[in-house]
This record gives sequence, C-alpha cells and structure tokens, in this order.
Amino acid sequence: MKTAVYPGSFDPITFGHIDVIERALKLFDKVIVTVAVNSSKAPLFTVDERLYLLREATNKYKNVEVDAFDGLLVDYVRQRKAIAVIRGLRAMTDFEYELQMALLNRRLYSELETVFLMPKEKYTYLSSNFVREIATLGGDVSQFVPSVCKKALLKKMKHQ
Amino acid sequence: MKTAVYPGSFDPITFGHIDVIERALKLFDKVIVTVAVNSSKAPLFTVDERLYLLREATNKYKNVEVDAFDGLLVDYVRQRKAIAVIRGLRAMTDFEYELQMALLNRRLYSELETVFLMPKEKYTYLSSNFVREIATLGGDVSQFVPSVCKKALLKKMKHQ
Amino acid sequence: MKTAVYPGSFDPITFGHIDVIERALKLFDKVIVTVAVNSSKAPLFTVDERLYLLREATNKYKNVEVDAFDGLLVDYVRQRKAIAVIRGLRAMTDFEYELQMALLNRRLYSELETVFLMPKEKYTYLSSNFVREIATLGGDVSQFVPSVCKKALLKKMKHQ
Amino acid sequence: MKTAVYPGSFDPITFGHIDVIERALKLFDKVIVTVAVNSSKAPLFTVDERLYLLREATNKYKNVEVDAFDGLLVDYVRQRKAIAVIRGLRAMTDFEYELQMALLNRRLYSELETVFLMPKEKYTYLSSNFVREIATLGGDVSQFVPSVCKKALLKKMKHQ
Amino acid sequence: MKTAVYPGSFDPITFGHIDVIERALKLFDKVIVTVAVNSSKAPLFTVDERLYLLREATNKYKNVEVDAFDGLLVDYVRQRKAIAVIRGLRAMTDFEYELQMALLNRRLYSELETVFLMPKEKYTYLSSNFVREIATLGGDVSQFVPSVCKKALLKKMKHQ
Amino acid sequence: MKTAVYPGSFDPITFGHIDVIERALKLFDKVIVTVAVNSSKAPLFTVDERLYLLREATNKYKNVEVDAFDGLLVDYVRQRKAIAVIRGLRAMTDFEYELQMALLNRRLYSELETVFLMPKEKYTYLSSNFVREIATLGGDVSQFVPSVCKKALLKKMKHQ
Repeated sequence: MKTAVYPGSFDPITFGHIDVIERALKLFDKVIVTVAVNSSKAPLFTVDERLYLLREATNKYKNVEVDAFDGLLVDYVRQRKAIAVIRGLRAMTDFEYELQMALLNRRLYSELETVFLMPKEKYTYLSSNFVREIATLGGDVSQFVPSVCKKALLKKMKHQ
Repeated sequence: MKTAVYPGSFDPITFGHIDVIERALKLFDKVIVTVAVNSSKAPLFTVDERLYLLREATNKYKNVEVDAFDGLLVDYVRQRKAIAVIRGLRAMTDFEYELQMALLNRRLYSELETVFLMPKEKYTYLSSNFVREIATLGGDVSQFVPSVCKKALLKKMKHQ
Repeated sequence: MKTAVYPGSFDPITFGHIDVIERALKLFDKVIVTVAVNSSKAPLFTVDERLYLLREATNKYKNVEVDAFDGLLVDYVRQRKAIAVIRGLRAMTDFEYELQMALLNRRLYSELETVFLMPKEKYTYLSSNFVREIATLGGDVSQFVPSVCKKALLKKMKHQ
Repeated sequence: MKTAVYPGSFDPITFGHIDVIERALKLFDKVIVTVAVNSSKAPLFTVDERLYLLREATNKYKNVEVDAFDGLLVDYVRQRKAIAVIRGLRAMTDFEYELQMALLNRRLYSELETVFLMPKEKYTYLSSNFVREIATLGGDVSQFVPSVCKKALLKKMKHQ
Repeated sequence: MKTAVYPGSFDPITFGHIDVIERALKLFDKVIVTVAVNSSKAPLFTVDERLYLLREATNKYKNVEVDAFDGLLVDYVRQRKAIAVIRGLRAMTDFEYELQMALLNRRLYSELETVFLMPKEKYTYLSSNFVREIATLGGDVSQFVPSVCKKALLKKMKHQ
Repeated sequence: MKTAVYPGSFDPITFGHIDVIERALKLFDKVIVTVAVNSSKAPLFTVDERLYLLREATNKYKNVEVDAFDGLLVDYVRQRKAIAVIRGLRAMTDFEYELQMALLNRRLYSELETVFLMPKEKYTYLSSNFVREIATLGGDVSQFVPSVCKKALLKKMKHQ
C-alpha cells in the first residue's frame, strides 16, 4: 500500500488544501493529512480544533486519515511508513520555501520523496493566512473554506 | 470623475509613495491615499501621525485626498465609488504578494481593478521598513522621505 | 480625452488580450490596440491578418482603435498623444521582461507611463505562443481565442 | 496499475533525468519515458538516436518503457491510460514554464495530473542544453550523462 | 591590504557561512566576520555567545578577524577601511533582499561595493533559521554546523 | 597579483559593462575583459569589431586587458591564472542563468570562483540586446553606450 503524508498548519483547512488532497488520492492508496504541532507561528485554532475541522472537511474521502505530529517531519514520515510527502505548489515565493524544505528534509532522511501537486488555478493564491485576515475584517469566506470552517471562524471572531 | 484609491501602511510615507501618487494623478481625476488601519503589523506611527505626515507631504497636489479605513479594502473602494486600486510595483517578492492580493480582492469584488505603476528606478528598492531601520540606527534618511517625516522619525527615536 | 496604447505582437489576439482591453476601457477614454510591426520574432500571421483579427475581435467595443506601428514604441506613443502604455501582467518571467521594457522606455521618453493590468486568473498563463503550438499539434483552441482566430489558425495549418 | 508518463526532448538523456525516473519508479507501477517528437527546437540527436540512448540508459529498470509521441501530450496521456505526467523541477524560470504547461494541459484535459519531483541538488542546474554546449566546446561530460551518451556526443562532434 | 567585511546575524554560524568565508579569503587579504548587534530579530544566542562560536569556528584561518558592530553597516565598513562587503547568495527570495540591501547601502555610502559569492550547492538552502528549527525539534544538526555550535544548541535546548 | 576574468559577448560593450569593470578594478589587480568567441548567438559585430570597441572603451583604465577566447571558459581561466570570474548581476531571470553557469563551471573546475557585482541602478535593466534593438529602430543610444559604439551601430544599420 502506497501511503503519502500531507503535512501543514491547516489553520484552518481551505478549499485549496482539499483540492490537493483529492489530487493526492488519485496517486496514492492512502493520504495522511497531518497537523504540524510544533510549527512556530501562533495559530488561531488549537490543534484539536484544527483536527476537528480537518475531519469534518475530509470525512467524505475513504482513504484519508487525519493526524497530528510533534517533532521532525522526517521522523513522522519514517514511522508512518509513507513513501512520499505531498505539498501543494502555489506562488513563486512559496516555491522557493517549499524547495528549501524538501531539500533539507532529504538531507535529514535520504529516502524522503517530496511530491509537488498543483491546485486549481483559482486556488493558486489562496492561503489560510488570507482567510483568517478576511474573516477578521468581517469579510465573507464562503468561497475559500468549507462551511464548517466558516462557522468556526465566525465563532472565533466573536470571542476576540 | 475617475477616482482611484491608493491604500497602504504609509509608516511613514516615502519619496517612493509620492512618486506613485504623481503618476496616478496623470491617469485619474482624483487619488485617495488611504491608511489601512487594521493592517496586522505593529506600526511606528499612530494612524493620526501617519495621516498628518501624508497630508503634509501631499498638500501641494490638488486632486489628492488623504483618508483612513477600517475593514476590507474592497468595501472601502465600493463605498468611495473608486474605479481602481493603485499599487506601486517594486521588487520581485513584492510582485508576488501584490498579485496575490489583487487576485483575492477581485474574488471578493469582481469590479475591482488593480492598477500597477512603476516608481522611478531609484525608488525601486525603497520601503518604509528600510527607512525606519536606517533612522533607528542613526542614519540620515533625507534622500528617502520628505523633511516632515525625517523630523517625525528623529522625534520618535528620541522617545524610544 | 485620456488615451492609452496597448502594443503587442497579437499573433493572434487571445481571450487574455481581450480581457486586458476590457479592463483598460474602464480606465481610459480610448484604447489604441497596436501591432508592433518591427518585432523581431517570425510571426505566423502577417501584419494585415493580425489587424483583421484584432478588428473582428474588438469591433464590439466603441472606444477601441486598431492600428500598427513601425519604429520605437515611445515615438508612437508621443505621436498618438497617449498618456499611458497598457501591459498585461502574467507569469513571473514575463514580469521581469515587462519591467525592463517599461524602465527602458521611460529612459527614452520620461513622460511615458506604463500601466500594468492583471487578466483573469484563467488567462494568467495564456500566450499567443501556446495557442499557435496547440493549433500546430491539432488541439482545439476554442477556449483560448475568438472563433475568427480559430478559423484563421485552422486555415494556416492546412497550408503549411 | 498506476502508470505515469515522463515526457521530454531528452537530447540527450542526462543523470538528472535518470534521477527523476528513479524517483518516479518509487511512486508509480510503470513509468513511460517518452520523446516529444514535435517539439519546436532543432535537436542534436534524431528521434531514433534519442530512443536508443534512452533505452541504453534505462534498461536496468524493470518498470520503465521508452516511447515517442507526436501531437498533443494530453492525447498521448489519455491513450496510454496514464494517471500522471512527471516533471523534474529545477531552477526558477524553469518552474514558471513548467507551471504554465501544467495548467494549460489541465485546461485541455481536466483529468491530467502533473506531478513535480525534485532531482538531487547536484542536478538542480543540469540541462541537456548545457551538456551539448560543454561537449561542443570540447569539455568532459562524464559527470553529467551516461557513458553511452558521452560516446554519442563525441561521435556527433566529429561529424560537425 | 584589501579588507572585506562579512556581516550577518550568525545565530549560529553554519557550514554555509564557513564556505563563504573560505571563498572570500581567496579574494581578499583580510576578512572581518562581524555580528550585526542591532539586527531586529530576537536571537537565540547572545552577541557574546555568537562571537565565541564564530571564533571557535574560524580560528584555523589566519586572515579572519571576528567582530561585532552597532549602528549602520556603511559606517562600520568606512571605519574599518574595508573595500567590500561580502554576501553569500542562496535562494531566490534571498537574492531579492540582498540586492535591495546592497543598493540601499550604496545609496548611503557610494563607495561601498557588495561582492556576492556562491556557497557550495549543498549549502544553497541552508540557513541558521533552519538549523535552530531542526535543533528545537530534536533533530541532528551535525551536517549543518561545526560541532562547537551543535553542543551550544543542545545546551540551549535543555534550558528552554 | 590577483587577476579576474570578465567574460561576455560584448555585442557591443555598454555603460553597464564599463560600470562592472570599474567595480572589479577596485577589487583585483588586473581585469581581463574577454570575448567568448564560441557563444551560440549570431552576433551583430564580428569578434574583431567587438575587440576594437572594447579597447576603445577601456583604454583609460590601466589594469584592463582585452582578449578573446575559444572553448571552455574554465580552461581559459586556468590558463590565464585568474582567481575569479566576474559577472554583473542584473534582473531576476538573469540571476538564475548566472547562478546555473557559475555552479556548472565550478563542477568543471572546482577552484573557479564566480564573483557577482552589481552595476548602478540605472544600468540594472540595460543589455546589449536592448541597445541593438533600439539602434535598429532608429532610436538614440547615447545614454547606453560609449560614443565609439554608437558610431559603429549607426554604420552597421546603414549597411543592413
């Protein structure tokens, strides 16, 4: 069975992420969508909230597992016996950072293969960052995230 | 009357911004230079200070209005009945970010047109960030900002 | 009256070009779409064929004039009393080239303003080059160019 | 069975291409390495020569098929019942072009998935172009291409 | 005597920095490796710790001086009578930033020459940032930094 | 004595090249400006004409030698006992190509050091290509090339 890991902050999951997951499912037998717990940025949603939103947004896909990990990505990939890490390719600056991480991860674990997939054009410039900013300013995020995320964002905004 | 909005942090306004304003005035009947109040970064100058510096720096131009806005840029543009948003194009990474914002704003308000103008070569790499850093380190910023901004920066530095 | 010049090879005109023309019409009173005759590449269509296709594709717009020019763009712009040159912004490498031309043109004619507009996301990666290649390989170009161009391409292909 | 197509000019095949093939073999059950016959550039090697070199260089891999195609890549992929197109990611400008082709191919065939893989760091800047240039100038290409290609290059150089 | 200044955060020094220092030593009679004290980021190591690590890592080179500076780089360069500033070129986004700083520094001190050197391919994507992140997550950084830095990182991690 | 080689097509030499030569002279004891004879492009000027223009344009500098070479750059550098190759850094796409050549040359000759210098901002987007194009279209190139080149360009244009 060919398993791939799709790591990220998912703060929260967007339609861009879901588009990448659907593409990965065509290539791999199983896709583990996994929250990087130790990521340095101050997240809007807790790890548990992000896992809940990921599960709600992906429960229609049979071969998706939602998980979280602590520590190095390469250790997680090895332990989960995955053969590839999935990354969505978006804008140019993004690409540089992605390439850097992929090369450095390969330095830490030479077996690691990073597979870059391209989301739909209309998601090329979409990011969780942007979605949080729009929501904070009172904008409508319906076209960017699943409705369960939209509700969660509205709730967060009220409590801030 | 064709009105354009030129949004930004303007923390503080530089000769690069003024160069873009002059170019925009050749294309539009009115240019509204507007401070994005809800921008996420911790500014050096308060909104009122930035408005004062903008007014001082642009009072020689007849068709410029100085303003500030809260909330989404697209809502502000709609309310002001502007036909375009002005952005200055500088370095490459800048370009990526600008393109992203322009495409996402268009997703939120399909009528929104973003017009990119190119400042003079010598302002290509100038940013308010850089100006604040130079001032903090005791450097002379006369060639980068109007004298009213230079004075305001020196005053700020004394009180830190 | 504010006139803008939109220069290019237009070999042939695509939906991406038409999208840029529509955006320019919102900003300017008149848009002159003009074929650069002396462009160095070996074109597929003659200047007359390109002018015909441009006219057919833009005859629904009231304030568009179709023209061609020989020599330097800056001289043409001056002679036509235009206040701006329009360019569509697409991919990154494109951007570099566009910036270079805009800066060099300004060196030749300091009054020249280049205005960059952004086509719809789905046209971001579209180019006449690509359209010609698809047509050469027998692909369907209906979603990339007006039907008059599609017919002209099919005719060209038969005679090669 | 999951099949991927790896298209290119392969003029000639380099260690960078072989590195990408090895990575693809870990992800897919079969990899079809296929020469794009109608590519616009004037090749150094004929299609038959390139097929010979590809076969010699890849005969140690069990699940690799060497082929050539005429016409549109998307038609070839459909006909071969492949689920993905493989592309190696190298430098930045490369990336732009690759993204463009991937998006446009998807426009022609929405099922097409392009999978980007990253060759080893030391092959990041390697290209067939460069290899041909080095060989033309009398340089040693042993570290860039298999010995069968080196011999073929030397032979070509003698006959020019 | 031709002296060059190599400024940076060096938080901590990596094999990439050392590679650049060795290249600079071939070009200049003396290389001053100097810690920018007023750099805005919150460093992991104090200035004294960074100076200690720099000295340990470079004590095998005869013509290297380790130093720190406060204030503007251009003032420091002038005072040290250096003829050039050394910068290592890594990824693309890096390049933009480096170009910006070099042009702006030249605006502040027209005599300043910035010399860009290219580290070994395998250090192209290495940064102190990445090293700190790997160490924080419990990864082995032996292949990225001298052993004295590795020890210092392990010690820091224990006390956090 | 520290010698650097500055290779190029110099078809013809521009003020941008001269700016780079002046910067290189501050760093090295001798700078060899050398025409790459085997460069693949069809040049406007013959090698002899380019050498003449280079000599005329640089005869005011004491430590400049004008030369031409055939074959691999790395062989020429070795034979001339130079310690570095000089390259001017201009636009972004340029940078990618330059980096590629520098890394590949180092693969062919590990001792080779490529030193990147930055021309004045106003020459950032200048290229011989552009100068030839402007001259072909009847434009004035006085601000881009020495008067001896301008005369040579005018003469060439008459005979075409």
